Amino acid sequence: MSFTDSPPATSPPRTRPAALDLPPLPPDPDREARRQALFQNVGLRPGTLRINADSLKPRLFLMSYDEKSYTEDEYTDRYDELLTFLREHPDLKHWIDVRGYDDLPLMERIMQDFGLHPLQMEDVLGDYQRAKVEVFDDNRLFLVSRMTDFTAELTVHDDQLSLFTGPNYVLSFQDDYEDCLEVLRNRIRANFSQLRRRSVSYLAYALTDVVLDHYYPTMAAIGDYIEELETCIFAEKSQKRLLARILRVKKDVVRFRRLVYPERDKMSEILRLPDEIVPEEIKVYYRDAYDHAIQALDLAESYRDSISSLADLFLSDQSNRMNEVMKVLTIISSIFIPLSFVVGLYGMNFQHEDAHGHVLPLNMPELYSPVGYPILLCVLLLIVCIQLYYFWRKGWLNND
Amino acid sequence: MSFTDSPPATSPPRTRPAALDLPPLPPDPDREARRQALFQNVGLRPGTLRINADSLKPRLFLMSYDEKSYTEDEYTDRYDELLTFLREHPDLKHWIDVRGYDDLPLMERIMQDFGLHPLQMEDVLGDYQRAKVEVFDDNRLFLVSRMTDFTAELTVHDDQLSLFTGPNYVLSFQDDYEDCLEVLRNRIRANFSQLRRRSVSYLAYALTDVVLDHYYPTMAAIGDYIEELETCIFAEKSQKRLLARILRVKKDVVRFRRLVYPERDKMSEILRLPDEIVPEEIKVYYRDAYDHAIQALDLAESYRDSISSLADLFLSDQSNRMNEVMKVLTIISSIFIPLSFVVGLYGMNFQHEDAHGHVLPLNMPELYSPVGYPILLCVLLLIVCIQLYYFWRKGWLNND
Amino acid sequence: MSFTDSPPATSPPRTRPAALDLPPLPPDPDREARRQALFQNVGLRPGTLRINADSLKPRLFLMSYDEKSYTEDEYTDRYDELLTFLREHPDLKHWIDVRGYDDLPLMERIMQDFGLHPLQMEDVLGDYQRAKVEVFDDNRLFLVSRMTDFTAELTVHDDQLSLFTGPNYVLSFQDDYEDCLEVLRNRIRANFSQLRRRSVSYLAYALTDVVLDHYYPTMAAIGDYIEELETCIFAEKSQKRLLARILRVKKDVVRFRRLVYPERDKMSEILRLPDEIVPEEIKVYYRDAYDHAIQALDLAESYRDSISSLADLFLSDQSNRMNEVMKVLTIISSIFIPLSFVVGLYGMNFQHEDAHGHVLPLNMPELYSPVGYPILLCVLLLIVCIQLYYFWRKGWLNND
Amino acid sequence: MSFTDSPPATSPPRTRPAALDLPPLPPDPDREARRQALFQNVGLRPGTLRINADSLKPRLFLMSYDEKSYTEDEYTDRYDELLTFLREHPDLKHWIDVRGYDDLPLMERIMQDFGLHPLQMEDVLGDYQRAKVEVFDDNRLFLVSRMTDFTAELTVHDDQLSLFTGPNYVLSFQDDYEDCLEVLRNRIRANFSQLRRRSVSYLAYALTDVVLDHYYPTMAAIGDYIEELETCIFAEKSQKRLLARILRVKKDVVRFRRLVYPERDKMSEILRLPDEIVPEEIKVYYRDAYDHAIQALDLAESYRDSISSLADLFLSDQSNRMNEVMKVLTIISSIFIPLSFVVGLYGMNFQHEDAHGHVLPLNMPELYSPVGYPILLCVLLLIVCIQLYYFWRKGWLNND
Amino acid sequence: MSFTDSPPATSPPRTRPAALDLPPLPPDPDREARRQALFQNVGLRPGTLRINADSLKPRLFLMSYDEKSYTEDEYTDRYDELLTFLREHPDLKHWIDVRGYDDLPLMERIMQDFGLHPLQMEDVLGDYQRAKVEVFDDNRLFLVSRMTDFTAELTVHDDQLSLFTGPNYVLSFQDDYEDCLEVLRNRIRANFSQLRRRSVSYLAYALTDVVLDHYYPTMAAIGDYIEELETCIFAEKSQKRLLARILRVKKDVVRFRRLVYPERDKMSEILRLPDEIVPEEIKVYYRDAYDHAIQALDLAESYRDSISSLADLFLSDQSNRMNEVMKVLTIISSIFIPLSFVVGLYGMNFQHEDAHGHVLPLNMPELYSPVGYPILLCVLLLIVCIQLYYFWRKGWLNND
Repeated sequence: MSFTDSPPATSPPRTRPAALDLPPLPPDPDREARRQALFQNVGLRPGTLRINADSLKPRLFLMSYDEKSYTEDEYTDRYDELLTFLREHPDLKHWIDVRGYDDLPLMERIMQDFGLHPLQMEDVLGDYQRAKVEVFDDNRLFLVSRMTDFTAELTVHDDQLSLFTGPNYVLSFQDDYEDCLEVLRNRIRANFSQLRRRSVSYLAYALTDVVLDHYYPTMAAIGDYIEELETCIFAEKSQKRLLARILRVKKDVVRFRRLVYPERDKMSEILRLPDEIVPEEIKVYYRDAYDHAIQALDLAESYRDSISSLADLFLSDQSNRMNEVMKVLTIISSIFIPLSFVVGLYGMNFQHEDAHGHVLPLNMPELYSPVGYPILLCVLLLIVCIQLYYFWRKGWLNND
Repeated sequence: MSFTDSPPATSPPRTRPAALDLPPLPPDPDREARRQALFQNVGLRPGTLRINADSLKPRLFLMSYDEKSYTEDEYTDRYDELLTFLREHPDLKHWIDVRGYDDLPLMERIMQDFGLHPLQMEDVLGDYQRAKVEVFDDNRLFLVSRMTDFTAELTVHDDQLSLFTGPNYVLSFQDDYEDCLEVLRNRIRANFSQLRRRSVSYLAYALTDVVLDHYYPTMAAIGDYIEELETCIFAEKSQKRLLARILRVKKDVVRFRRLVYPERDKMSEILRLPDEIVPEEIKVYYRDAYDHAIQALDLAESYRDSISSLADLFLSDQSNRMNEVMKVLTIISSIFIPLSFVVGLYGMNFQHEDAHGHVLPLNMPELYSPVGYPILLCVLLLIVCIQLYYFWRKGWLNND
Repeated sequence: MSFTDSPPATSPPRTRPAALDLPPLPPDPDREARRQALFQNVGLRPGTLRINADSLKPRLFLMSYDEKSYTEDEYTDRYDELLTFLREHPDLKHWIDVRGYDDLPLMERIMQDFGLHPLQMEDVLGDYQRAKVEVFDDNRLFLVSRMTDFTAELTVHDDQLSLFTGPNYVLSFQDDYEDCLEVLRNRIRANFSQLRRRSVSYLAYALTDVVLDHYYPTMAAIGDYIEELETCIFAEKSQKRLLARILRVKKDVVRFRRLVYPERDKMSEILRLPDEIVPEEIKVYYRDAYDHAIQALDLAESYRDSISSLADLFLSDQSNRMNEVMKVLTIISSIFIPLSFVVGLYGMNFQHEDAHGHVLPLNMPELYSPVGYPILLCVLLLIVCIQLYYFWRKGWLNND
Repeated sequence: MSFTDSPPATSPPRTRPAALDLPPLPPDPDREARRQALFQNVGLRPGTLRINADSLKPRLFLMSYDEKSYTEDEYTDRYDELLTFLREHPDLKHWIDVRGYDDLPLMERIMQDFGLHPLQMEDVLGDYQRAKVEVFDDNRLFLVSRMTDFTAELTVHDDQLSLFTGPNYVLSFQDDYEDCLEVLRNRIRANFSQLRRRSVSYLAYALTDVVLDHYYPTMAAIGDYIEELETCIFAEKSQKRLLARILRVKKDVVRFRRLVYPERDKMSEILRLPDEIVPEEIKVYYRDAYDHAIQALDLAESYRDSISSLADLFLSDQSNRMNEVMKVLTIISSIFIPLSFVVGLYGMNFQHEDAHGHVLPLNMPELYSPVGYPILLCVLLLIVCIQLYYFWRKGWLNND
Repeated sequence: MSFTDSPPATSPPRTRPAALDLPPLPPDPDREARRQALFQNVGLRPGTLRINADSLKPRLFLMSYDEKSYTEDEYTDRYDELLTFLREHPDLKHWIDVRGYDDLPLMERIMQDFGLHPLQMEDVLGDYQRAKVEVFDDNRLFLVSRMTDFTAELTVHDDQLSLFTGPNYVLSFQDDYEDCLEVLRNRIRANFSQLRRRSVSYLAYALTDVVLDHYYPTMAAIGDYIEELETCIFAEKSQKRLLARILRVKKDVVRFRRLVYPERDKMSEILRLPDEIVPEEIKVYYRDAYDHAIQALDLAESYRDSISSLADLFLSDQSNRMNEVMKVLTIISSIFIPLSFVVGLYGMNFQHEDAHGHVLPLNMPELYSPVGYPILLCVLLLIVCIQLYYFWRKGWLNND
């Protein structure tokens, strides 16, 4: 008897009473659909390669150089030619630059041709892999970096750069046609560049470092935006959803910090690798990069503090505006309510004569005084002045 | 004389005056009863097996496979047959899958037949055991994982999966008939699956990994719900008990983080085990799982930050709504209170003639002007306009 | 010349100006007296035994057992008999159970007879000693545990259990006649109990473990109370001093966490002790206890988070109630203040005729219209309706 | 040409625009003067001895003892005699007790005669040195402790006690004539005291321990004051600047924690010293002191939590009082504003007859009803009752 | 085919829907321009020297000394003479002091002549390098310190001091003509100064230490300013933007803490260096400096706590002022609104006679009483008194 014949084995529901019965949310089919979609791809064999839905068609570039010569070409859709070229020029140093992942068979061929582990390839193609370094095949490195940018849409954007070193090449993967590595390509193109004289180990370092170097302007742009938000708080008109913006930046800074943190660990791990894998003369550079990573972390933490202060400022300002509203209400009410009482007083109908025409001299004689009204006006004025003086002394009248 | 004869030895009450005398809570017999129930089962011999009240009747499943053949069957209530089958097929790899615990004698037999320690069995059957790994009998592993799910009721649900490895089998325990391991069973059922070619060590890894893989969609579903809550904050009508919901999710995220944290430690402990117990080629996979655990932790911390921000937003929004209430009050009061004073003023009864018919020209001559009333109406309108202008400049009139 | 002859050497007062001159508190002789009492007992020779004022008269109990026989008795005021019994039965395992400390000479005799260090005895008798383990005399253990309980008065109560192991006995101290160890005594009393077959090392473990086992129901009772408080927050009537209660529980949870934390360290220290002191087969049990301690810590931290959330909920609810008060004020004021203005308007005394009987047609002709009053009432009703509609659309009228 | 001839080299000012232009503070010559004074003494040669302005004239005391004999004397202004006495009694144990520093030449002589390093002496005389231990001359100890007290002015006061051990003496420094060591002196004076039988290592320990013992009553006094403040919060009248007081205590507790923290490190460092420097039988005592330091830290952290809770309570209470103010306003306004409208309604002057004497029956017929006024009064009373019932049901009328 | 001929490879935009659609910010060309400028200099070859835009023209100073002789001179624009002098006096100890960086060729020459690594030079000239120590050429040190000052503009200013040691010289770099090292120069100028007798290792220490010594007055000045702000909070008139000031100081303190933190690490790293590089007799001094760094950190953390308390105080005070505003409104409204009702009551026009002249005795007979008005005035007074008494008992009338 095979198991699949048996009826589906369902567990009876077990009730766990909630601490407090929140009223049930209205059922939302969208939410349920989204939830089920999330659990779909779970449990695939580790090392199973999957291409994300929004990946780009891969383009292949090759830069080959030694101290004296240099050549570069695009090999998109010509992967075999690329391999041939590599095989024919074992004496050159090569940078194979793959941009875009959306061609599973190609990715699998690259994986096999360059001796990569399926789990590594999974890290390359996956959604998100924090910065790390792995040694494989005894002396090859697998380096993951996260490239950041503070976009014109005012958020931090990050992309992954995956590097594999080989005896005479560096193989890089990224899922973007445009990147921040152009400056490095120009350094290779330049004659007499140090980069061309040095080993591919140095090229791998240079690629890692240029990504790290981008952290500073990213942070600076965030800092600039934070100052802009600070100015908004004190602006005449409170801007709509300012707090939401502030908290969004905070999220970005926290996310950025989480990007940089593993970068620091990566660097320190590289520094602890034996000299056979990363030679001492390259480690000098990684030590410098390590310093930079620490300083970027420091900066990110400063920014996080700044943003918390900003949120405090915002809330205090909000409370301040409330204060002002209350003051206006209090001043106007306090001035006019007593006045209204006084004029109400003299609107009363106490009779000055009784039904028989006898004068009742105690009933509101003020109304019959020839200067009653002017005196009353003066009294009202006096009340106003006293109150204004009181508010002025309290400091409520200056526009703070 | 035996001790049990002596009268109960009670201590005189010792008074510890509270710092501040809170008024005593009304006595609540329920609370007291619940409290006493809690202290009931304390102090049993460690390793004493107890079945929780809401456990399910156990069902037994067996999958047996090698590279070429494969068979599966349900052995519920046929435990002896299962043992016989195992004994008869020492060359196959077996996955014995126990679902439900509510049969103490069976559990004890399994414990003895498979050489488990009573303390381990107690961990299996108990309420809650954080993820961990234990080596026993020199080269067997006891692995505890926590399976998570974000249920349609919008909370994180977690269950325990306990694994024991043996020379040619994996023994798994869980207290649920439905689980997240079906995908793995299908991988075994598939011909030529890598899983069938590899050792049971790899099966144990695969079971551990599939649980870990569920953390991502769980987090994603939480993230989805957080965004839904964020939208609610800015919705026109404040939803009831929104903060309670936000704080409940926070609790879930914190709990989730506490589930994942030991998972990371488990992985790193496995990586430090000698290669005789976990072979190097399996460790490569655990290293990958370790990375995933760290990233799940990162994500959980991001979510915790997001929720804190959400609570801040909610409170600021609450204060904002208060502000709006105050503004409406202030605008209406500020406009009408002065007007009321003015009309009260002309409701006064100052007499224009004294008792003898003499005109008192200073007493409210306005009332006798032929255009007194129209002028007054204009004055009132003017006052309103000035105030509206003032409020408009303050920015109180736009519906911000 | 002896020093005591010299006049008292007093230092001239040194002024340290406070940052902000807070007005001096009214002198409070009580406070001063309490302060001086506190500094009284300082500087005694370390290892000086002192009995706390609220200690109980000591009662002595002895349980003696081996695999086959078992006897127990109370030896209060018969300490010498107890010693004799111990000397006469070197082959039995003994549990000497001292409850209450208030007999200094007895305590000192016990200290000497059982080879305890004065500093250890000071820890036993003192106010508070965190959980710890000490090895002395090469292979004896001194174990301190803290027994907890969530009392009917809704606070965490904790007491100290001090254990000394010897070659064939365990000596325990506690300052309470009733304890949580009765379950253990019953296990000893039971025939064929594992406890009776095992060494006194195991008895020491069992005593330590039963204390640890009490942490779970203590936490559960706290959790239960927290849920009760959560319900109170949303109850119709705010309960008096709810926040004070919440913060008191928080204090308890934090205190509880501080009790458990050293317990974990104690367990991990025991696990690191050489096998000669704690045999491997006992360490298996301590490893289990270590797991439990970690989980209790986890739970305590969860509760701390829950309570912080609770306090946030409370404050938000407080602000919510304020909001509601303001809404009632705003609705009533906003409705009636304009109405009052209108009726005030038609209470003005502008004259319809001048002194000479000429009609002044512009002065409040409405008052002379035959339907003036009914129209006015309609206008008033209309104003009310418009305002109610506005408030209803704002969502202020539903009882949210 | 010498450098001092060159004109002063000043840098051109570099402008760093502030993020937000805060209005400049009014120039404050005092502030500037204070600022410059602070930077005055910077850059002196390390090890340069300086006496603080508020130091006391030094007084010298000597206690010399062995198991049988004991003598003490004050040697103020007789330092040479003290040295002679020490030289003549190499077999006694000495405690040289220096109180007050204000005699630089004397301090320098002591430094040289007792072989202290100038940097150590700088630590002794300086403003503030955290608790620490240093080994010098291979087997001598330099111990710094901080003595604390909770003064009658309700703040934590701390002073420094510096100890140097020598072959047969302990040299102590403090800048106060009165101290907390008197209890120790009495223990030395007592015949048969253990202190007199033991080495000077033990004396150094005893001095360190007595300081540590003072941390408990200091904490207890703070705890006492915290409870007093808690009572104030719930007192009928809010006390002036209560929050400032609460935050001041918090500052004190945090400062205290910072005093104790290095004390713990000091103890653990002593425990790690080789047995030649601190013999094992003394380490037993230090281990006890280490426990005490940890518990003092625990307590300090508990208090910090308590104070944070206190501040929360205060703020909630403040908001509560606001709530009450608002309730009074709301109740009174809500009751009387509608009433005022009604009476205003019947103060209108709609005419019951037109100019020609025709009755306008629709214009306010109520005013002509014989029971108009009594009915109106009843209506008003009814409105009040309805409102009071509404407020009572809301729970606003009980004095909560 | 060369790569540069290919058309620019642009990626199609990938949409990531934001969680909540915040309204887009108005486009701001400035912001965009600033953002692009930030990303300009990224990716230069590591070790590429760049001079910051606001650097000063370099000035060169040389102090040369041994125990007996001493000479100093400015060598600005005479670098070759300086080198010659150094070469001619190998027996003297030299301090080469470079102030200002704005001469790239000179900087490169110095780098080569003194054997510095380009990465080190980059650290010297760069924007910001945290304090650190590096060993190079086996026994030379590269030390970076951060000099701080609390300027008259009430912010913390920090500058970098970079030091390189050589066999007989110390080479220092800073980008300021004025510095805090003058006191050290004077110590060198002084005859018989210890500094002149000791090695250049000690000079390097002294330079590091004098920078560290500046941390204390910097902190003290911050502390002074914090107290000033505390006074402002309780001042009669709330100062404008006080919270912004408080948060700015907080930022400064946090930044200061971040400056000092690596200083501590630097010191502890120096202490771990082998004695060949930093001799033991110099380490004694560094150990002292290490203590100072820790205490500066302690202080910085104290200040951070103080400032948080200050912000709490400010917010509580803000809420307090609100409270006061509300009280004034409540007192005035509560007193006058009932009075207004009463006088409104007697302003009603209920007729005392019907159209036929019949008296309607129930209609407001009070108005016809001869003492109606005086009685009414008394009643009003009574109402006022009752209310004042109520407010006085609530404690609302005393000026808090």
